[in-house]
Amino acid sequence: MTAPTIKPKRIFGIAGGSGSGKSTVARVVFEHFGPEDVQILDQDSYYRDNSHLSMDQRRLINYDHPEAFDEDLFVEHILSLKEGRSINCPVYDYAQHTRSEKIKVIDPCPILIVEGLLVLAIPRVRELLDVKIFIDTPSDIRFIRRLCRDTKERGRSTDSVIAQYQKTVRPMHLAFVEPSKHYAEVIFPEGFNDNAQEMLNAKIRQHIKAQTLITSAQKL
Amino acid sequence: MTAPTIKPKRIFGIAGGSGSGKSTVARVVFEHFGPEDVQILDQDSYYRDNSHLSMDQRRLINYDHPEAFDEDLFVEHILSLKEGRSINCPVYDYAQHTRSEKIKVIDPCPILIVEGLLVLAIPRVRELLDVKIFIDTPSDIRFIRRLCRDTKERGRSTDSVIAQYQKTVRPMHLAFVEPSKHYAEVIFPEGFNDNAQEMLNAKIRQHIKAQTLITSAQKL
Repeated sequence: MTAPTIKPKRIFGIAGGSGSGKSTVARVVFEHFGPEDVQILDQDSYYRDNSHLSMDQRRLINYDHPEAFDEDLFVEHILSLKEGRSINCPVYDYAQHTRSEKIKVIDPCPILIVEGLLVLAIPRVRELLDVKIFIDTPSDIRFIRRLCRDTKERGRSTDSVIAQYQKTVRPMHLAFVEPSKHYAEVIFPEGFNDNAQEMLNAKIRQHIKAQTLITSAQKL
Repeated sequence: MTAPTIKPKRIFGIAGGSGSGKSTVARVVFEHFGPEDVQILDQDSYYRDNSHLSMDQRRLINYDHPEAFDEDLFVEHILSLKEGRSINCPVYDYAQHTRSEKIKVIDPCPILIVEGLLVLAIPRVRELLDVKIFIDTPSDIRFIRRLCRDTKERGRSTDSVIAQYQKTVRPMHLAFVEPSKHYAEVIFPEGFNDNAQEMLNAKIRQHIKAQTLITSAQKL
């Protein structure tokens, strides 16, 4: 592993409920600028490894609670990227509820996007963010997206999606995600929309340009 | 009056309740870019001229209701600026509740900011906006700002501020301003904050640059 010297100039946090569209917002930024300038750190990668538990025990875990995440590793990795060191990001296996054997190397770059349910809710993560964005999509739209995704892409029944939504997703949203909106500096009310995205992109472009100028000056 | 040919490239609408900080957001943009590139059209300038009423009658008017504004003139002026014609913006006399003798000439320019309580609530105004922003400052903070402004700058008593707030400001906010948040593409949750303002400025800078390029190309 090399020791890159480019520190991320800015860390953008994008929080929001399940189905809010936060990953879409992050992905559009990534696709617009490319991996040289932008990297995404997804909170979902930091689900705890539950390989020491039986499958039945793993199924009982509340995956929407902050305790389901390995906060220490998440914070450590954000700090590493901030300080210019590459990280080995875990790759989660949703079927097994464990960390897979794979890892994904993420190199430091001018803009780091940290996205996930709780990135504004976990104080140690929130404090590392330079820009705090909340995607505030209405709850009915969020539920409909989750229902479509889980029935079409993950082969689950409507009843099981509703049961999980009512048992953990919704209460945890109200307990942790919704109150963290309070910390946002900018709110996108309907997930992806052109003007919100352009505003975010314009600010990121400005930071990348500034960073490029600094890097060029340092080479003189 | 000359007939300028530069049409505003973008109309930004900034709505929000009384005391939300929407004027501050607009003013910071104006001060950052200057009058060549940015002009502000304030909905408050379009309060109806009530000089045909007695002072007692004027005091009974609900100044937070959409009917208190001259919507036709407001829309006509936005359209004129959009089409590249200067306007004679009325200057309201708050003490007399009438239009003053003064006017303010506003020339068309690349960015027009239309700001006011109801710019997202009035359909004919909303439809003319290219970018829709809502300043969503919490209601207690908004009341405190209004109280301070009206007692310190306008010589009013605390009791009269509370009475007006409860009688018209708050109910009209709930009836017209708050529901119009639904139309916003971007929400600033606490009025002025550096990151929100920089995001807005970055997008405006981009439009001004594009406009400058187009204007230069047209001269070739």
